[in-house]
Amino acid sequence: MHNTAYNLVKLPKEKVFRDPVHNYIHVQYQVILDLIDTHEFQRLRRIKQLGTTSYTFHGAEHSRFEHCLGVYEITRKICDKFDRNFKKQTPGDGLWDESERIVALCAALLHDVGHGPYSHTFERLFNTNHEAITQQIITDETTEINRVLRTVAPDFPLKVASVIGKTYPNPQVVQMISSQADADRMDYLLRDAYFTGTQYGSFDLTRILRVIRPYAGGIAFDRGGMHAVEDYIVSRFQMYQQIYFHPVSRSMEVILDHLLKRAQDIYHDGQLEVVDQLAPFLAHNWTLADYLSLDDGVLNTNFGIWRHHPDPILSDLATRFLDRRPFKSVEFNDETVTLLPKMRELISQVGFDPEYYTAINDSFDLPYDSYDPHAENPKTQIEIMQDDGTLVELSEFSPLVRSIMGEQSGDARFFFPKTMLVKQHQTQIFEPIYQEFQQHIKNNQLIKLAND
Amino acid sequence: MHNTAYNLVKLPKEKVFRDPVHNYIHVQYQVILDLIDTHEFQRLRRIKQLGTTSYTFHGAEHSRFEHCLGVYEITRKICDKFDRNFKKQTPGDGLWDESERIVALCAALLHDVGHGPYSHTFERLFNTNHEAITQQIITDETTEINRVLRTVAPDFPLKVASVIGKTYPNPQVVQMISSQADADRMDYLLRDAYFTGTQYGSFDLTRILRVIRPYAGGIAFDRGGMHAVEDYIVSRFQMYQQIYFHPVSRSMEVILDHLLKRAQDIYHDGQLEVVDQLAPFLAHNWTLADYLSLDDGVLNTNFGIWRHHPDPILSDLATRFLDRRPFKSVEFNDETVTLLPKMRELISQVGFDPEYYTAINDSFDLPYDSYDPHAENPKTQIEIMQDDGTLVELSEFSPLVRSIMGEQSGDARFFFPKTMLVKQHQTQIFEPIYQEFQQHIKNNQLIKLAND
Amino acid sequence: MHNTAYNLVKLPKEKVFRDPVHNYIHVQYQVILDLIDTHEFQRLRRIKQLGTTSYTFHGAEHSRFEHCLGVYEITRKICDKFDRNFKKQTPGDGLWDESERIVALCAALLHDVGHGPYSHTFERLFNTNHEAITQQIITDETTEINRVLRTVAPDFPLKVASVIGKTYPNPQVVQMISSQADADRMDYLLRDAYFTGTQYGSFDLTRILRVIRPYAGGIAFDRGGMHAVEDYIVSRFQMYQQIYFHPVSRSMEVILDHLLKRAQDIYHDGQLEVVDQLAPFLAHNWTLADYLSLDDGVLNTNFGIWRHHPDPILSDLATRFLDRRPFKSVEFNDETVTLLPKMRELISQVGFDPEYYTAINDSFDLPYDSYDPHAENPKTQIEIMQDDGTLVELSEFSPLVRSIMGEQSGDARFFFPKTMLVKQHQTQIFEPIYQEFQQHIKNNQLIKLAND
Amino acid sequence: MHNTAYNLVKLPKEKVFRDPVHNYIHVQYQVILDLIDTHEFQRLRRIKQLGTTSYTFHGAEHSRFEHCLGVYEITRKICDKFDRNFKKQTPGDGLWDESERIVALCAALLHDVGHGPYSHTFERLFNTNHEAITQQIITDETTEINRVLRTVAPDFPLKVASVIGKTYPNPQVVQMISSQADADRMDYLLRDAYFTGTQYGSFDLTRILRVIRPYAGGIAFDRGGMHAVEDYIVSRFQMYQQIYFHPVSRSMEVILDHLLKRAQDIYHDGQLEVVDQLAPFLAHNWTLADYLSLDDGVLNTNFGIWRHHPDPILSDLATRFLDRRPFKSVEFNDETVTLLPKMRELISQVGFDPEYYTAINDSFDLPYDSYDPHAENPKTQIEIMQDDGTLVELSEFSPLVRSIMGEQSGDARFFFPKTMLVKQHQTQIFEPIYQEFQQHIKNNQLIKLAND
Repeated sequence: MHNTAYNLVKLPKEKVFRDPVHNYIHVQYQVILDLIDTHEFQRLRRIKQLGTTSYTFHGAEHSRFEHCLGVYEITRKICDKFDRNFKKQTPGDGLWDESERIVALCAALLHDVGHGPYSHTFERLFNTNHEAITQQIITDETTEINRVLRTVAPDFPLKVASVIGKTYPNPQVVQMISSQADADRMDYLLRDAYFTGTQYGSFDLTRILRVIRPYAGGIAFDRGGMHAVEDYIVSRFQMYQQIYFHPVSRSMEVILDHLLKRAQDIYHDGQLEVVDQLAPFLAHNWTLADYLSLDDGVLNTNFGIWRHHPDPILSDLATRFLDRRPFKSVEFNDETVTLLPKMRELISQVGFDPEYYTAINDSFDLPYDSYDPHAENPKTQIEIMQDDGTLVELSEFSPLVRSIMGEQSGDARFFFPKTMLVKQHQTQIFEPIYQEFQQHIKNNQLIKLAND
Repeated sequence: MHNTAYNLVKLPKEKVFRDPVHNYIHVQYQVILDLIDTHEFQRLRRIKQLGTTSYTFHGAEHSRFEHCLGVYEITRKICDKFDRNFKKQTPGDGLWDESERIVALCAALLHDVGHGPYSHTFERLFNTNHEAITQQIITDETTEINRVLRTVAPDFPLKVASVIGKTYPNPQVVQMISSQADADRMDYLLRDAYFTGTQYGSFDLTRILRVIRPYAGGIAFDRGGMHAVEDYIVSRFQMYQQIYFHPVSRSMEVILDHLLKRAQDIYHDGQLEVVDQLAPFLAHNWTLADYLSLDDGVLNTNFGIWRHHPDPILSDLATRFLDRRPFKSVEFNDETVTLLPKMRELISQVGFDPEYYTAINDSFDLPYDSYDPHAENPKTQIEIMQDDGTLVELSEFSPLVRSIMGEQSGDARFFFPKTMLVKQHQTQIFEPIYQEFQQHIKNNQLIKLAND
Repeated sequence: MHNTAYNLVKLPKEKVFRDPVHNYIHVQYQVILDLIDTHEFQRLRRIKQLGTTSYTFHGAEHSRFEHCLGVYEITRKICDKFDRNFKKQTPGDGLWDESERIVALCAALLHDVGHGPYSHTFERLFNTNHEAITQQIITDETTEINRVLRTVAPDFPLKVASVIGKTYPNPQVVQMISSQADADRMDYLLRDAYFTGTQYGSFDLTRILRVIRPYAGGIAFDRGGMHAVEDYIVSRFQMYQQIYFHPVSRSMEVILDHLLKRAQDIYHDGQLEVVDQLAPFLAHNWTLADYLSLDDGVLNTNFGIWRHHPDPILSDLATRFLDRRPFKSVEFNDETVTLLPKMRELISQVGFDPEYYTAINDSFDLPYDSYDPHAENPKTQIEIMQDDGTLVELSEFSPLVRSIMGEQSGDARFFFPKTMLVKQHQTQIFEPIYQEFQQHIKNNQLIKLAND
Repeated sequence: MHNTAYNLVKLPKEKVFRDPVHNYIHVQYQVILDLIDTHEFQRLRRIKQLGTTSYTFHGAEHSRFEHCLGVYEITRKICDKFDRNFKKQTPGDGLWDESERIVALCAALLHDVGHGPYSHTFERLFNTNHEAITQQIITDETTEINRVLRTVAPDFPLKVASVIGKTYPNPQVVQMISSQADADRMDYLLRDAYFTGTQYGSFDLTRILRVIRPYAGGIAFDRGGMHAVEDYIVSRFQMYQQIYFHPVSRSMEVILDHLLKRAQDIYHDGQLEVVDQLAPFLAHNWTLADYLSLDDGVLNTNFGIWRHHPDPILSDLATRFLDRRPFKSVEFNDETVTLLPKMRELISQVGFDPEYYTAINDSFDLPYDSYDPHAENPKTQIEIMQDDGTLVELSEFSPLVRSIMGEQSGDARFFFPKTMLVKQHQTQIFEPIYQEFQQHIKNNQLIKLAND
């Protein structure tokens, strides 16, 4: 039995935040309000949820702050539903223990608090890890978040962190926050669809919340609502194909990656002006407080300085990033991958350093967790509960879901400067190189010619 | 007759930008695409449309970039409508001259290009003026925008600038971009409503575009669509009351104002670390290029540095701004304004410097142009065209619009630290001061007591 | 204290009805489900909510059945809110007594159950009264609805009927169902806006439900949500102007009225074939069971028979109604009303019987209850509760609402055959009459000429 | 080359119909307005688009009238797009011939004009055929529609009819109106989704209209918009599973079928009162004019009379239909189909005539044309056009579409009176029969027991 001796203060009057996706975010506990008001949480306002995606879908300027509120709100609604319809009656009955609500709410709110600016690229280059940092922010006694959580109970920060680390004993709480059909994914699909202005991510959240239910092993969905869950999975698949894997956004991420790499090199030579907040990372010597002072604006402010740097590659890449000058790209496959050295060589011949002006980017590297219960590192299955209480894995009912399971939804692309596609270039000397390059591209794919 | 000897290149295939408000932004001319791709225009991605409003409505992270595209798109639709239904037949017939399209589109796209970060506050403190800078960006030969515009015709930049300056000879073009019912207002109402997640700003754009029409003196609306125009005016009024004048956003603007003022003072004493991009403004010696390197992130990055500054007021205000710790506020009126010195004195007694910790903020100072044709500086009226061609000013048909005309929609508020409202403070010595302060507040308004 | 000894059965599992406006209608009690399943309630599926409005807005085919479910759902949400936040603590504290929920829900569901086909016109001609019949259906022991209600308590039908009759002792329950801001009006505005495809009727129901609250005298709204209530009143005003008073719908109602009047006359002469269900009404000798067998289809089926009747006026009017051939109309006012005899005379001269081919229709005759607390038969005011608990009538805060209060939103129109507006008629002999008729019409209004 | 010597009158001013799905329906030609105003077309207002579906989704009261307008509007938009971007330059270039617009618009508007009330059931019982009648209404010289069409050209009715009959020579026109991705399907998916209040039918029409294009063999879609087409196909699949095949709607159709069959039997015995409009069909001797006087209300009016008929089965089935008392149902499969005789026998033992109180209903009998290019009667494939102009069939790009192709989306159900599922019946004598019946049902499916 979990410790329910929490010190919890209910607000005299529920407080709300207006939200475009959920209409309102409802807050009933002082601790939630206090968490939102912390330095570490407010900082999420200055970090875009989708990084470089706003370069393709200009509405997608929404922040991680609002996504976290959204995950909290969906979790709150699930708890309400469980408390109303599936309240634990006897120990071991597999139903919902209402004393778990507050740990679930806090974990939902804080699950992404460790994200930094342009997470995926930044992490690769500076060896940070947003999941580890999330847990550190929660458990480190110097943070405001930790201080707020400790008002609930001394061991409460550890409990919240363990939900995020998936070691919390109650699988219902863990699966609410992270599973194939969790509050995190539900919020970001709806939110990203809203702000990009596409509708692929739309699914019927109300109906899913009607059919979600606890069982001893975690969370399942009533048979009657199977189609709502199916639709959510299909939406997710479509969002990956249409939004998250969009070639132009990935191209801008490639530029960011190369820009930071170049900056790192120059920094080591002692030639780089850097604003206070970024310096510790280029020096590879940073603290949690340093990390918490980063945001999108800090990076962009550095780029704004670097665009005037004498190094032509650094200044060009900084300009490309700030002024949105993406690389072009083509798809390649197992067969045409062998052409890449030649393509790089051609690019090099017109004067671009291939290390900074080309890239291959495999969208499977992106944190995509397509539904696949048979993976080496198996994901929690989506379970459908029949009338008689038996569980059946979703894809057994759904041909649509089956079709997605067996399919990889990304592609492998080769990125290069747009100049390579110019039809009639002013500088005639490069004309033959451009022509040769272009002969290898058809229907947006790399192709082999007779002599390759 | 306007010069139609423009050098215009149509795109081989229309290009679109996905937009949450208009679904798609449609681009048919190379010059429009080239303008969007300029350094000066891309910079608008990093400037929030609504400044501090996102502190109240967290969805409102949308940028000036997308608003400009939206104004362009509405203007494009108006031109399409005019060209289809009201094409000029003979000189002086008051109908639409299709050769005006490109100047209208460019002016629409660029009308806000001179905006800087947190415009209203920044302008007040550093004596900049976004309207003047917009025209400068268009006409200064060093900008990419000017270079692109000159490809159309040598005098084209001046023409575009004159539309924005309202001196362009064709009143239809001028009124599309700036009048009481222009593409600018139409886009921002719809867009701000969408991103804040309220619906007050919604009105029936499709219907307005059905009834809009040119006449010799500018732009009018058919009688049959009067209610759509009325609804637009009511929506605008409601957005001001509910969103633009929200006390918490204004409070954050007060903090920003005081923070920059404090920074300025300290800078003059030579004690302030400032990143490259902001320094010329604190030194009051800046160029257009300096201005174009500013964005929201640059300001916030400075604040992130200043929060660690030894000056307690500077660091406190920087922290308040970044971590969203707004002042509280109450309404006052002509009668209770006399209480303000006393209130400031009480605030001072508990240790706050009133210069930095109080403010009065009259929402009428905000650039609000409520519909009032009888103002000293008269606005273009909204004209309704009857079946027989006669024009009638909107409010003559609409009691709702009349009611708004005669009414000021803002309020005057007094801002102060939240601490002043604490009920039982730990430090008992200040208790009587808090009590006295609080006695003067009732129903969110400043009130006089018997002895005042 | 109300009798709470109700026999109430909760459903083992909440049941829902998918609804386009509220997403879901939630049913938790067996008695609600049983009421929906009655003969009398299911009949509402065959009666259009907006009568002849679908002739103007073709999407408006929605039925009274779904409106009743919607009113029930809003009432249910209000009860939930009251129970959660304003539960009665002590007798006389003016808060919510949860034992009132079931009577409120039943009254909400059944408030319109006495409506017949094309209510307003039908009632005028056959002297029926839907409000009286609603109460009769509830209290008459022969109905299924009465039988279901009696399972709750023997006197329960009378209680439900007294809510609808506004004599129930608890004003909170009465005002939920009928007041200036009741669940009835809230549902029909949203629903009619949705199905007509306009957005004038949209307002922020979620926000209104957040600020609604009980007090000893009935229902009030928190000051903080004043703008949501204001927006609802403005929406209501706009819906009347744009949808409910639309001249074409009123014209079709005029035709229906004249058609039924003509049928009545012919019936008395014994020359009319009538289907079983309508006969008792033409004979002015009907029972409640007769009334309950009526629906829109019964009337239309009669019209389909009558269109072949030898009486040319009856067959013409039936054809006009079924095939949507509306009369035209113009506005007249106190001054031009004197022209009507002349206009009728002109119409008569070209061969139309003015009794059946003209009408004046004053939209104020329609059941419009614009907000006016100073009326002879005073409506319940909308009360705004300030922070200190005092009540202020809405219009004192809202210039928009004030402007509507002092304004009549309808118009008086004169209806006549479209032929009168033909410009060049084939039968030249009537040409001068048409011309004279048309000279009196300008900008859709009746006008006087020099010699009138 | 098609005859372009059409007599076409453009309206002086475009006329619009407000529409919830497309916002406005735009009419530019007099002939379209005249067709809408015909007796035959106005009659579609009184025929529900989805028949018995409104018994399950109460919002789905929308009529065939508005669906026809919607198909017209989508076709109009496709023509606009083709005319703007793909205008025929030379004979045989496979591009769009603008002189085809009017025949396409008329065919789109009239494609469903032959539908009667509750089409599928009515047709089965009375041997009518809405497709044949559609062509008859268009070509029969007695109809108003034919008269209007002849104003365009003497052979114009035949041309319009041949589009609907798919024999018109231009495949682009034919495929606009009927193919796997035609204006008909696009409108009904969006419209049915809107009025049922589900979102499964939503797809991105704007994007599909951006990528649709003509080619010599008909209509194709640009590669760049493949995902929009894929999403449309998935939506269609989901609507069939969730809406069109809903067991309760099918149950109400079973009752309608049995009710009409019983009425037919009794009519032949001369014992049935029937209103004028239905009589010719029961007598199997009807004309086109008879057919055109039918609508949903005529059938329901008969049922209202029949509910009082002395035949207990007729009156019971009429009551069930009017008061929504559906049969229950369970799924069966190839294995459990052998249980049906036993189940019918049990039902018979408690007193129900199995001929009228049971049914098997295979949703594949419904007019479902799931995407399958390999069918015996092959459908037009959906073709995707690559950058180099080559065509590829949709499913080759889309695993989602492939998964649907190989899958049947319906089920086979056995319908029976709800009474059979009662747990403890008052009349104890039938208790064992109920128990035996119920033992064969588990998880909504028919199951075999050990001894079966």
